[in-house]
Amino acid sequence: MTFELIIRGGTIATASDVFKADIGIQDGRIATIADRLIDGLQVIDATRKLVLPGGIDAHCHLDQPQAPGLASKGARMADGFCSGSISAAFGGTTTILPFCVQHRGKSLTAAVADYHSRAAGQTVGDYGFHLIVSDPTPVVLEQELPALIRSGHTSIKVYMTYEAMRLSDRQILDVFETARQEKAIMLIHAENHEIIGWLADRLERAGQTRPVDHARSRPIAVEREATHRAVTLAEIPGVPLVFVHVSGGEPLEEIRRARARGHVVIAETCPQYLLLTERDLDMPGLLGAKAMCSPPPRDAQAQAALWQRIEDGTIDIFNSDHAPYCFDAEGKLKAGPDPSFRAIANGVPGLETRLPILFSEGVVKGRIDLPRFVALTATNNAKLYGLHPRKGSIVIGADADLVLWDPDRRVTITNDILHHNVDYTPFEGLEVQGWPETVISRGEIIVDKGELKGKPGRGRFLEQDTSSAWKKREIEAWT
Amino acid sequence: MTFELIIRGGTIATASDVFKADIGIQDGRIATIADRLIDGLQVIDATRKLVLPGGIDAHCHLDQPQAPGLASKGARMADGFCSGSISAAFGGTTTILPFCVQHRGKSLTAAVADYHSRAAGQTVGDYGFHLIVSDPTPVVLEQELPALIRSGHTSIKVYMTYEAMRLSDRQILDVFETARQEKAIMLIHAENHEIIGWLADRLERAGQTRPVDHARSRPIAVEREATHRAVTLAEIPGVPLVFVHVSGGEPLEEIRRARARGHVVIAETCPQYLLLTERDLDMPGLLGAKAMCSPPPRDAQAQAALWQRIEDGTIDIFNSDHAPYCFDAEGKLKAGPDPSFRAIANGVPGLETRLPILFSEGVVKGRIDLPRFVALTATNNAKLYGLHPRKGSIVIGADADLVLWDPDRRVTITNDILHHNVDYTPFEGLEVQGWPETVISRGEIIVDKGELKGKPGRGRFLEQDTSSAWKKREIEAWT
Amino acid sequence: MTFELIIRGGTIATASDVFKADIGIQDGRIATIADRLIDGLQVIDATRKLVLPGGIDAHCHLDQPQAPGLASKGARMADGFCSGSISAAFGGTTTILPFCVQHRGKSLTAAVADYHSRAAGQTVGDYGFHLIVSDPTPVVLEQELPALIRSGHTSIKVYMTYEAMRLSDRQILDVFETARQEKAIMLIHAENHEIIGWLADRLERAGQTRPVDHARSRPIAVEREATHRAVTLAEIPGVPLVFVHVSGGEPLEEIRRARARGHVVIAETCPQYLLLTERDLDMPGLLGAKAMCSPPPRDAQAQAALWQRIEDGTIDIFNSDHAPYCFDAEGKLKAGPDPSFRAIANGVPGLETRLPILFSEGVVKGRIDLPRFVALTATNNAKLYGLHPRKGSIVIGADADLVLWDPDRRVTITNDILHHNVDYTPFEGLEVQGWPETVISRGEIIVDKGELKGKPGRGRFLEQDTSSAWKKREIEAWT
Amino acid sequence: MTFELIIRGGTIATASDVFKADIGIQDGRIATIADRLIDGLQVIDATRKLVLPGGIDAHCHLDQPQAPGLASKGARMADGFCSGSISAAFGGTTTILPFCVQHRGKSLTAAVADYHSRAAGQTVGDYGFHLIVSDPTPVVLEQELPALIRSGHTSIKVYMTYEAMRLSDRQILDVFETARQEKAIMLIHAENHEIIGWLADRLERAGQTRPVDHARSRPIAVEREATHRAVTLAEIPGVPLVFVHVSGGEPLEEIRRARARGHVVIAETCPQYLLLTERDLDMPGLLGAKAMCSPPPRDAQAQAALWQRIEDGTIDIFNSDHAPYCFDAEGKLKAGPDPSFRAIANGVPGLETRLPILFSEGVVKGRIDLPRFVALTATNNAKLYGLHPRKGSIVIGADADLVLWDPDRRVTITNDILHHNVDYTPFEGLEVQGWPETVISRGEIIVDKGELKGKPGRGRFLEQDTSSAWKKREIEAWT
Repeated sequence: MTFELIIRGGTIATASDVFKADIGIQDGRIATIADRLIDGLQVIDATRKLVLPGGIDAHCHLDQPQAPGLASKGARMADGFCSGSISAAFGGTTTILPFCVQHRGKSLTAAVADYHSRAAGQTVGDYGFHLIVSDPTPVVLEQELPALIRSGHTSIKVYMTYEAMRLSDRQILDVFETARQEKAIMLIHAENHEIIGWLADRLERAGQTRPVDHARSRPIAVEREATHRAVTLAEIPGVPLVFVHVSGGEPLEEIRRARARGHVVIAETCPQYLLLTERDLDMPGLLGAKAMCSPPPRDAQAQAALWQRIEDGTIDIFNSDHAPYCFDAEGKLKAGPDPSFRAIANGVPGLETRLPILFSEGVVKGRIDLPRFVALTATNNAKLYGLHPRKGSIVIGADADLVLWDPDRRVTITNDILHHNVDYTPFEGLEVQGWPETVISRGEIIVDKGELKGKPGRGRFLEQDTSSAWKKREIEAWT
Repeated sequence: MTFELIIRGGTIATASDVFKADIGIQDGRIATIADRLIDGLQVIDATRKLVLPGGIDAHCHLDQPQAPGLASKGARMADGFCSGSISAAFGGTTTILPFCVQHRGKSLTAAVADYHSRAAGQTVGDYGFHLIVSDPTPVVLEQELPALIRSGHTSIKVYMTYEAMRLSDRQILDVFETARQEKAIMLIHAENHEIIGWLADRLERAGQTRPVDHARSRPIAVEREATHRAVTLAEIPGVPLVFVHVSGGEPLEEIRRARARGHVVIAETCPQYLLLTERDLDMPGLLGAKAMCSPPPRDAQAQAALWQRIEDGTIDIFNSDHAPYCFDAEGKLKAGPDPSFRAIANGVPGLETRLPILFSEGVVKGRIDLPRFVALTATNNAKLYGLHPRKGSIVIGADADLVLWDPDRRVTITNDILHHNVDYTPFEGLEVQGWPETVISRGEIIVDKGELKGKPGRGRFLEQDTSSAWKKREIEAWT
Repeated sequence: MTFELIIRGGTIATASDVFKADIGIQDGRIATIADRLIDGLQVIDATRKLVLPGGIDAHCHLDQPQAPGLASKGARMADGFCSGSISAAFGGTTTILPFCVQHRGKSLTAAVADYHSRAAGQTVGDYGFHLIVSDPTPVVLEQELPALIRSGHTSIKVYMTYEAMRLSDRQILDVFETARQEKAIMLIHAENHEIIGWLADRLERAGQTRPVDHARSRPIAVEREATHRAVTLAEIPGVPLVFVHVSGGEPLEEIRRARARGHVVIAETCPQYLLLTERDLDMPGLLGAKAMCSPPPRDAQAQAALWQRIEDGTIDIFNSDHAPYCFDAEGKLKAGPDPSFRAIANGVPGLETRLPILFSEGVVKGRIDLPRFVALTATNNAKLYGLHPRKGSIVIGADADLVLWDPDRRVTITNDILHHNVDYTPFEGLEVQGWPETVISRGEIIVDKGELKGKPGRGRFLEQDTSSAWKKREIEAWT
Repeated sequence: MTFELIIRGGTIATASDVFKADIGIQDGRIATIADRLIDGLQVIDATRKLVLPGGIDAHCHLDQPQAPGLASKGARMADGFCSGSISAAFGGTTTILPFCVQHRGKSLTAAVADYHSRAAGQTVGDYGFHLIVSDPTPVVLEQELPALIRSGHTSIKVYMTYEAMRLSDRQILDVFETARQEKAIMLIHAENHEIIGWLADRLERAGQTRPVDHARSRPIAVEREATHRAVTLAEIPGVPLVFVHVSGGEPLEEIRRARARGHVVIAETCPQYLLLTERDLDMPGLLGAKAMCSPPPRDAQAQAALWQRIEDGTIDIFNSDHAPYCFDAEGKLKAGPDPSFRAIANGVPGLETRLPILFSEGVVKGRIDLPRFVALTATNNAKLYGLHPRKGSIVIGADADLVLWDPDRRVTITNDILHHNVDYTPFEGLEVQGWPETVISRGEIIVDKGELKGKPGRGRFLEQDTSSAWKKREIEAWT
């Protein structure tokens, strides 16, 4: 048999195994894995390379319209689906799951339609959407959501903070109830909105309005509180729940306690929480704004707690929370030259640096092994968000989304080597070991040795299946 | 290419993935996994079957000479390597790791040589040995152990109880120190010997000598105590530690606490702790002896705790602790017709029923998914005991140790359908769903539809590599 | 010296000691404690009696106007200050601290004035007030509260539930901040309002409107959530916090965790949580309404957790939460003959039975010793609410509020032996050992052998000092 | 009535209350407490003074013969009963409970008789004995111990370390069983002997033999392990257990866990663990030997944990563990000028400094209030060791053991102001606020303004009653 493409001589890693083999690709899918494959229209030499499943970034914001009540009001996202997906691809990520936001008073269905039109024909890799519900009216709960879930939008996010987004406890219960009925998977941003507002007002009254005061207005107790509350809300109707961007030990402890009570709770963290601290917000002038995100980076103790929980399996998924605001008047600084921290858009970019950072800090430094790296960056996201086994692993029949990874290459991260449209990276100057050399999407090379090879627009929308968090799925699948 | 053997149309499960593919076997190894393979000297139809890695039973006792000071003194093990490996194979287990025991005052090296001679030419599947050290003299610590570890005996077990076996805390530290230097993996039987003796004396003085009194002489606090002590002993020099046959929530909590302090601790449990309770020892006459093992089965609460920890990843491995004593005067009842529980040989048989029980109680009942089943019964054992990726997974280059598993077949377990030489099973009457149909070892069918096809003696000794518990191993492996 | 009154030959118990002595009273205060006192205008023989500090009930509702938004709307409290204080006295309680409620849109100061006028000249024992803030306007926060606190109203309660009462998280922070500045002690009713509403709506939609559904609408997770949230709110400004009517192990665990983080958190429980369960709400017809309170009684496991925490010191205070609604159309059943549980007034009576129940179930059954009984029912309340050493102990200079307690007397509690105006007791039929025989307030016998001797109206208002929860107080006191 | 002695105008503190009153003493006992007492043969003005119960030091070593196998072999205790009790008195301690040691192969009864003869006619305050059992033969267990317990020696200590003292787990169970039958209270020194020996050998082989290596040979994990083991041993027969000299958070956590399981476990700590750290052992030459004790002082984190647990009630009693070895060739340095840490006698002196240190660091610094200070230093010891209410509180009928404490006096602790025979104090240079001015034993002034007034030999032996740890005692006491 003559394959479209053969990956030869690499060391393949899945979430469970590491082994040497060749991969034969046909019709964009993995057709054969074997010790030696000969006939290919194209053959890539992967000797001394790792062959990994293409990364899945299940937490990124692209081309998101800004709601009136947000801190980001007036800011513009620098990355849309095109530049975002390209930047992702250069970082070894072949699938992205950005958010489709319903704004208050608007139809969710219309928002999804709008978002589909923004994304269609733009991306270089494949994509799906998480839905953000900010106005759970009866129509949304009883008609729009069920229809959208059944058409492949099976993951839904809600916010406990941000004036324009947040739901009350009762509204969250309503959305959870619909999710339960339709077996959608829920994601939550857990911070106590009222405490933040109270503290922020107090800081502003005291003239404390610098970027570092952003962190002071959202201490980790605020996240711990909301995490425990959200766990309780999930327990009431009985739904699995994903906590995005967990920032330290205290909320993790709430998650561990929930699991010990038998609940299905999933934890995500992001590179910024492993590498930045509150000190990065405490810089001259407004420079600290570059590290501003919510929740804010914490301290060395929180970083240690996150690493421990990455190692022991408490943290299941690792995503970027890419929020592409430039450090300029269109982005972070849209509120003028001397803004309060409350008027600075939240979030940091990171689609492209996610995999190199976790590989270098995790695998190279011996904190995690290679299967765990694959699980955190690809396989677990695929299972959790209903894309497995099509995405997220190297198995027969899966889409041939692959990364040839050079485990020895050393790179100093600077913004000028990155491909997003954001004008900075919070990881400027960080040295990493390990870098994606060749990136393949559905059997097509889209990035190779630093050059874009894939055509933007080739990416496809992915209908998501039911999440693995709703159990018994695997056993049903085999017949 | 023409394969020796093709497994066609099955659903393959690894510790991370479930997918449909054909497997092509050459030279006894997995050569190709592909969506469709044609040319094979032999082709097995696996439609509607699961294709699993052959089970690895890393805790079983076979042909073990009895030391003078043991409760089992005078008892004879009914299974040697031949019948043991056959029974294992009928249950879907293709690799076994029994124990090689050093007796006090004897050479460990000589014991290993003796054990090699007992095993050679006997087994139908492959095998390795754990070493049991009962007399850690300077010669053993400084010469014998290092040489044996370097020759592929990388796993060592010590006992905290049994008069003839147990080491003092200080001796355990000595063995741990050698293990640390040689990167051997340590296993421990954790029960407080002195408390057991004190309670047993007291029970005997009170005339309470029935099999159920065995359980009363070893309450779970005895295991919890020894578990915490062993954790502390492992922390002092800094070695990973495997707790075999964990029986309930209290010792598991010690293991969780150790992990939370950052230590590498692995937990095993066995079918008897999930399915039996102390009540099974409380039967008319001596019938309770059939369920006697150490630690004893506990109660429903302990069973629930074990399941929870199997689900959440605290328990990493699942083995049988097969101890093949017949319920007769050669075995359990060797001390006469009315023995005290202290004179009854400990242990229950289980090599053949291990996989069906976990599949039925775990996968079919929705407690665990299929990848976790594979991890618990094969992959994790392979990694932990230095056999991966040769054993324990379905990847290119691995030994073609495979099980074609019928997920729908219902079987009532009775001893007459089993192939061990023991005259009973503690799981008599248990109905299970899921059963191995065809079992393959290194590409050779050894069991098929209830018939033995492999020739005893074809099995090979496996040199164990360094355990995955000694980190960074994976990353070193790819170059 | 000739005392007004001598208590002779009793066994005195304080929160630390038990000893035999006589007590000499002068000017209504304890003037002398000695092994033998001779000259008294009146001498009471206390042989074979315990002499205890008069009970302090720091959680009771009397003559409380009903707000429009409450479940109790339209219900009338059967007990005012007169009957309430008499019932308390018959139960050995000489000091009561009922609540003064601010209703939304109303002045707190005016509410306090109104309440003073309702209480003045009514009570047989002494009394103080906790303030309930339901509308923390700037005027209340900045003017009324500081002035009231400085005039002896140093304890403030807020609600997280009840539509007419509850504060938002932000409002709670505002009140806490004022409390911090003025060193007032905060009390909180912790249940998640929105979850309750969501569940209650759902139950009503399903036609589940019986009294037992009240319990189903407020599972313990609702209390656990609010407890953790309230702890977090208290941590932000840094104020001590009293959790009233803690009903089981889960909220207690939140309290323990808060303490382990170094916060000052105080826990109260009540007789109904030790003696009733959800089953008492599940009675024919509306009978279950007699046991309806919020939070609801739980189960045997919750009762065991409460006892453990009473024993180990986690629970500091024990009060009645007396809520005097008759089981008639004026009270519990004011919404007609077939009301939903939501229209039934919450709360149970208990001023008179509090001490006998804790003595019988706690001291007689060996769960707590006598000093702990005194601490829970009198001394700790006195310290916490700024009444110590004037009230709550038997020391020189203290008000001679004393109870002569017959530790051997057995009584079957029935409503016809009680002196409140409520037409039932939830403890009907309970047999207790230990009963107050003679009750003395400021040196005056107010109850003796079942007869009222004190004149209603003799009771005085107590200005509360700063709570012991605001530390260093004791050390400042001695100079 | 004319009292022998009146204490006038002081502020009395008990374990529950603080109040102003006069105390009238007759026949050496507290006869009257009143707001004003007139007629006394002697009157002491206590204005601006605290009047506290005389301190009870329930952990001190005096005139103890050295066993062959101890590190202290060959060392001589500098303090016997005379100087020890005088030093105690100068520090405000009026009752001491030193240890009576059984040596291996010897009779316990004979040891007690010997110890009585050493103590008789020596002390200035009163005394009792804890028994140390090092050889629990059947005679000791079945005859000697029961007889001794019944004759007022109700507290028994066992060691888990020290070659000459330590009992095996089994022997500990034997002693616990006797204690259970006779309701004696058990104390335990919890450190894992074998780990210590293993580490100490290793340190010595590496030439690490300085005093600081003593600490390195007994890391806190060694204490944590033994604490958990001892808890388990106590759970088996079901006896309360006192952990002496708890040194930090990890063993405290074991104690908290035991309590959460419902067991009666008592924790003691000592001044050295609050004020010293391992750094105090790391001094030039042998100076670190002055701070050597077992367990060793830990670090700042351990100190913080101890304070937290003193505040929250986990730690019940506070004693000195006075071990009077001089820093000379008779004492600490008896093994020559360059000893290994293993040949240096363990222990630090502290009888006289105990109360001032806890008052200054605890009460003055606002960590604990005055009642808690009294509880920790007197009342709880009295209750636990069967001396209450005769000792440990200020109640009618109690022995008039009182301290007039000047809360404002500032003192710099130096060894030359102390009255023990030890030639150093580990607290040299420490500034404290609060000092005993007048010390009274059974109504007799024994120390006044720095001068000894009581005659050595006036002290009496105290028969101990059953410990309060064996419950229900208080309730039985009042009839």
